[in-house]
Amino acid sequence: MIYDLIIVGAGPAGMTSAIYSARQKLKTLIISKDFGGQMAKKAVEIENYPGFKKISGFDLISRMQEQIKDTDIVEDKVIKIKKEENIFVLETKEGKEFQSKIVILAIGNEPRRLNVRGEAEHIGRGVSYCSTCDGPLFKNKAIAIIGGGDAGFETAIFMKNYTNKIYLLENEKVVRASLDNQEKAKGIEVITSAHLKEIKGDNFVRQIVFDRLGKEEVLNVEGVFIQAGYVPETSFLGDLVELNERKEIVVDFETFETKTKGLFAVGDVNCGKVKQIVVACGQGATAVIHGYKHIW
Amino acid sequence: MIYDLIIVGAGPAGMTSAIYSARQKLKTLIISKDFGGQMAKKAVEIENYPGFKKISGFDLISRMQEQIKDTDIVEDKVIKIKKEENIFVLETKEGKEFQSKIVILAIGNEPRRLNVRGEAEHIGRGVSYCSTCDGPLFKNKAIAIIGGGDAGFETAIFMKNYTNKIYLLENEKVVRASLDNQEKAKGIEVITSAHLKEIKGDNFVRQIVFDRLGKEEVLNVEGVFIQAGYVPETSFLGDLVELNERKEIVVDFETFETKTKGLFAVGDVNCGKVKQIVVACGQGATAVIHGYKHIW
Repeated sequence: MIYDLIIVGAGPAGMTSAIYSARQKLKTLIISKDFGGQMAKKAVEIENYPGFKKISGFDLISRMQEQIKDTDIVEDKVIKIKKEENIFVLETKEGKEFQSKIVILAIGNEPRRLNVRGEAEHIGRGVSYCSTCDGPLFKNKAIAIIGGGDAGFETAIFMKNYTNKIYLLENEKVVRASLDNQEKAKGIEVITSAHLKEIKGDNFVRQIVFDRLGKEEVLNVEGVFIQAGYVPETSFLGDLVELNERKEIVVDFETFETKTKGLFAVGDVNCGKVKQIVVACGQGATAVIHGYKHIW
Repeated sequence: MIYDLIIVGAGPAGMTSAIYSARQKLKTLIISKDFGGQMAKKAVEIENYPGFKKISGFDLISRMQEQIKDTDIVEDKVIKIKKEENIFVLETKEGKEFQSKIVILAIGNEPRRLNVRGEAEHIGRGVSYCSTCDGPLFKNKAIAIIGGGDAGFETAIFMKNYTNKIYLLENEKVVRASLDNQEKAKGIEVITSAHLKEIKGDNFVRQIVFDRLGKEEVLNVEGVFIQAGYVPETSFLGDLVELNERKEIVVDFETFETKTKGLFAVGDVNCGKVKQIVVACGQGATAVIHGYKHIW
């Protein structure tokens, strides 16, 4: 069977694509290894999605999922895509193959590792990339958050529920988070111009070492939350797409089509600078409506 | 006082701009003559906005409005904008003047008139552009809907609550509405290749005359709902913006900035082809975040 549309990924961009696809009666398949993407793991409630004063990422994605009708869903990971005579062939990790006229990539991105000494060996032993997953483990413990963007501050806001010893390290001279988030995180200790050098510990994290204005400093912490942005996992796409320097997929911003006709990329995985839930949703809707024209 | 941002219009695009602007602590003013734009007047419940299986346009815009904090609101209409030394000066119908560093135009558009004989003199006497406004007046009466796009079919779906004598005229050979909407409108009489010539009546509409494949035909109806698209009201912007052939504002699709630095256009008023609520919202968020960079 050849699908009209295969959507790879099931965060807000993929889910909105599916909502629109169902309304156009396209024969649709979603392939995703999990549901909700980064959104479902967000540390704090979402307050900037129009329509909800406050909603958890998990609840919002669940509500979107309820809107999808007549759509096949496969829990698997796409590891290869090729185009053969105008049909896309997708191979999955579990060895299955699926065919489609149009493909929308909504695969989001993965937390960026810092690759400092001690990081890799302490993952799951004090080093975390997701406070909603691991936060409760650090009750009343001193923690450091690495990264002064919104994600770092949102992690701090969330972690205030568990501990009052929170350090936030930013390597630039100023933090970049919204003033709103900065205000809510009041009480945490923000250290700017701080370059993390090493995470030390025995079986578990005990200390971080960082450079600040040419001087080495040390903090005793038992948790390190790394919030240093994201890198999309796009290498499996090969020649089908052009990538920018951040490994994001280059798209036409009017249609979200990649350099390959019929192949679209929406949400955080593309080269758009504004990584926001409602923006990802709008891109999903736009891609489906443009894609729809291809197959008629 | 000089605002950081003035948002003109209060439909979903304007409202989302305001939600994002408040989060960035920008000193913000919304100027709009009404709230909700076309969305608040939609004939049927919204089913394609991610997060809600079904919601009325009025309820959705009210929920968005509740998310806005610390924002000034003026109920008035902007009739002139000029830029003086990097500051925008906006004049309103009621003679007031406001100043801002950035302006986001989210003014939507107005129903397109057909300019056929009998149309203008029967507005409010059987001719309507808004079924949610006027629908109940036509209980058990024969009506004609002009336009076979989604708006036409949604008007038909809504009007089935009031009458079972519904004709829908489309001037092309096929209708363009989504299959989903076509299915829901089952039971109405669709007449394709129909070119409306005249609306006849005394004090009130009695008849429409149309040309079909070279033959003049007549239908006895007491209501005519014209759903022939929209035209934005953009002429007041003068040289600040470039317009396309549909009078829509030309924007850069990455940022939604117009040809004038600091002046953005989001939602139905710009040249984007996909006119959808969630797309308009995504554009509003994007413009604020790009605009934010201008004033820092």
